[in-house]
Amino acid sequence: MVELPADIGDELLARAAALAAFSEEEGALTRRFLTPAQRRASAQVMAWMEAAGITARIDPIGNVIGRWEGVSPGLPALIVGSHLDTVRDAGRYDGMLGVLAGTACVAALARARQRLPFAVEVIGFADEEGVRFGTGLLGSHAVAGTFDPAWLALRDADGVTLAEALAAYGLPLGAIGAAARRRSDVLAYLELHIEQGPVLERAGLPVGIVTAINGATRMTVAIAGTAGHAGTVPMAGRRDALAAAAECALAVEARCRSDGDLVGTVGTLAVRPGAINVIPGEARFTVDVRASEDKRRRSAADDILAANAAIAARRGVTLEQRVIHDQAAAPCAPWLMQRIERAMRAEGLTPFSLPSGAGHDGMTMQAIADIAMIFVRCAGGISHNPAEAITAADAAAGTRVLLRTIAAFEPRA
Amino acid sequence: MVELPADIGDELLARAAALAAFSEEEGALTRRFLTPAQRRASAQVMAWMEAAGITARIDPIGNVIGRWEGVSPGLPALIVGSHLDTVRDAGRYDGMLGVLAGTACVAALARARQRLPFAVEVIGFADEEGVRFGTGLLGSHAVAGTFDPAWLALRDADGVTLAEALAAYGLPLGAIGAAARRRSDVLAYLELHIEQGPVLERAGLPVGIVTAINGATRMTVAIAGTAGHAGTVPMAGRRDALAAAAECALAVEARCRSDGDLVGTVGTLAVRPGAINVIPGEARFTVDVRASEDKRRRSAADDILAANAAIAARRGVTLEQRVIHDQAAAPCAPWLMQRIERAMRAEGLTPFSLPSGAGHDGMTMQAIADIAMIFVRCAGGISHNPAEAITAADAAAGTRVLLRTIAAFEPRA
Repeated sequence: MVELPADIGDELLARAAALAAFSEEEGALTRRFLTPAQRRASAQVMAWMEAAGITARIDPIGNVIGRWEGVSPGLPALIVGSHLDTVRDAGRYDGMLGVLAGTACVAALARARQRLPFAVEVIGFADEEGVRFGTGLLGSHAVAGTFDPAWLALRDADGVTLAEALAAYGLPLGAIGAAARRRSDVLAYLELHIEQGPVLERAGLPVGIVTAINGATRMTVAIAGTAGHAGTVPMAGRRDALAAAAECALAVEARCRSDGDLVGTVGTLAVRPGAINVIPGEARFTVDVRASEDKRRRSAADDILAANAAIAARRGVTLEQRVIHDQAAAPCAPWLMQRIERAMRAEGLTPFSLPSGAGHDGMTMQAIADIAMIFVRCAGGISHNPAEAITAADAAAGTRVLLRTIAAFEPRA
Repeated sequence: MVELPADIGDELLARAAALAAFSEEEGALTRRFLTPAQRRASAQVMAWMEAAGITARIDPIGNVIGRWEGVSPGLPALIVGSHLDTVRDAGRYDGMLGVLAGTACVAALARARQRLPFAVEVIGFADEEGVRFGTGLLGSHAVAGTFDPAWLALRDADGVTLAEALAAYGLPLGAIGAAARRRSDVLAYLELHIEQGPVLERAGLPVGIVTAINGATRMTVAIAGTAGHAGTVPMAGRRDALAAAAECALAVEARCRSDGDLVGTVGTLAVRPGAINVIPGEARFTVDVRASEDKRRRSAADDILAANAAIAARRGVTLEQRVIHDQAAAPCAPWLMQRIERAMRAEGLTPFSLPSGAGHDGMTMQAIADIAMIFVRCAGGISHNPAEAITAADAAAGTRVLLRTIAAFEPRA
């Protein structure tokens, strides 16, 4: 029987803390794609892999890949991954926990000299958040073979192109295609990640099985009314852009309430001219809509666009709205979810399913493999924030479920 | 019969254009209290007064005062005033039109050598808008004897105190008290001003009689909810600060609709952290409530405070609200309104009454005299904006009403 060390939870938290020290900023964790901070974090992860007897390498996009061969070399692989880059002023678990958990599982196999009828690879993706070049998931796109060469011309805030950044990092420029894996070489993609939401915490459970990575629709809305003196324009003649935007924001909230896992958010709202004694003439806001089912999400997005239009027409204000993002949901494979469920029962945990509201590398990896995810409870659902927190016990529980899923894994019949 | 020149409308517009050239900024009109731009505008107004045979001076706060003596020197005065300072990027009529109209009326008296049984004074107040030192109406406060010496310590954006600015302008520092007029020396205060609202335009009338300068309540409201990932926090558990603020803004609008001349405005709204994919954790907004009757305004303000509190409680967000300004309404004196009405009828105009939603020097001058105001129609109700516009015909009509009111003036019985 393959076992994790008794103190695996503490080890995972200590390693996450160690990685958090590799930052572009003093006193905060910011680790963008292809920065010196990322190079140091990747070297640390490779060192941990190699110390455990796992072969490790950096692929042509900068991903760290550790491989534990199966009963014979070169067998198709079960890939276990997550990412090593972060948002600005990030927490230390978003992404990293999955890489550390995967590494711990393969280290356990190596320690037990346990060869499986397939290879196991642990990938620490170099870019998921997309903070540096605006476009995210670049690491998994390279592995999935869906990397668009046009992205090499993307520029960061300093005007450095992705091509220049890859060269400066020492990566061979024409070789990104070589990072791509064939579908026949990949048995499945598994990812362990912190939930980044409050659902497990509210349910009182340490671990959950993800049903789907939700799809997302994002829109920008601009309302133009008529600015005027707050004291001199009677209520009846007003075309108040902020009042119209407020009504739209409440309509988003109302539409997304009580429709399953549908969520809708107005995250930004800016008003002009923006003075205490001036009726707002302009309001701009954004809408973000997500759901595990694309049909439900698109229906909600359509209803929101229609509601905005009706509100604007009734109030006599001008409306300009645009859908700027439409990402389909990535369903997790039922056969993989069943294997995770079995592992949870074997660990004495109550199986519990929930969708992922946040995006993950699985959205990209599904191009070459069925995907599944294990969520670990995090404190208050807080993420993308230095206050991100998990317990050692929960990290250990999630990693034990991951190890059982790997050790008992059988490719799809 | 005292008459204005036939082309008085064109003259007023030409003089307003000439004053608009005295600005702190190239290509825009900004003329703050005690700036070189104000010194040049004041000198121009004095030159026009003196050319018409009117004695003119600068008082200890920087106001321009022209005086046309009555049948004997030193009689109590009917004061006709408005202001010569502007907001940033201002229109050219707000304030200036009243000073120019008053000057034209007294010039007509001087041309006709018409001595009245009282003196007539025209005041161009040096500060009404309060842009430079944050506190407004400083010019009329000095004349009304309500200038608070503590204001001498107010600082502008460059850290210059009001005391320093007065000294730099060449005004004798200890002398502001000498600007104050006694109630027994003032028969009434009259002001002609552009409406700054759309009421006269909608009514198709060039001139209106102001019933009161509305009182105003201003409040700041801060809502603290919980920021979170737009994709991962279910709708049911959200404490969305923006959604709460949107509901408050609509409650302000609903409360102020259909309650006479009551108006309520949410003019600013800022959201944090303010990202498309983050639930707002903080929202700050302002509320401005005005009405001609203090009781109606205060009742509305109380209702708004209560509605905000109820919305916050229901949504589980924290609310901090503060009334930062509570200015009582300044009713115009019925006996003065009757004299203006008589002058309008004599000019063949339909008397029409409306409140002033904006603040004016009369709010301060009522400390020493009954007040009344004549409004002139302005295009689209637009003010505090370079697009501020009036017609020569409307300017002439308002000034003729002002001259008739002055010429036929009898002190209160």
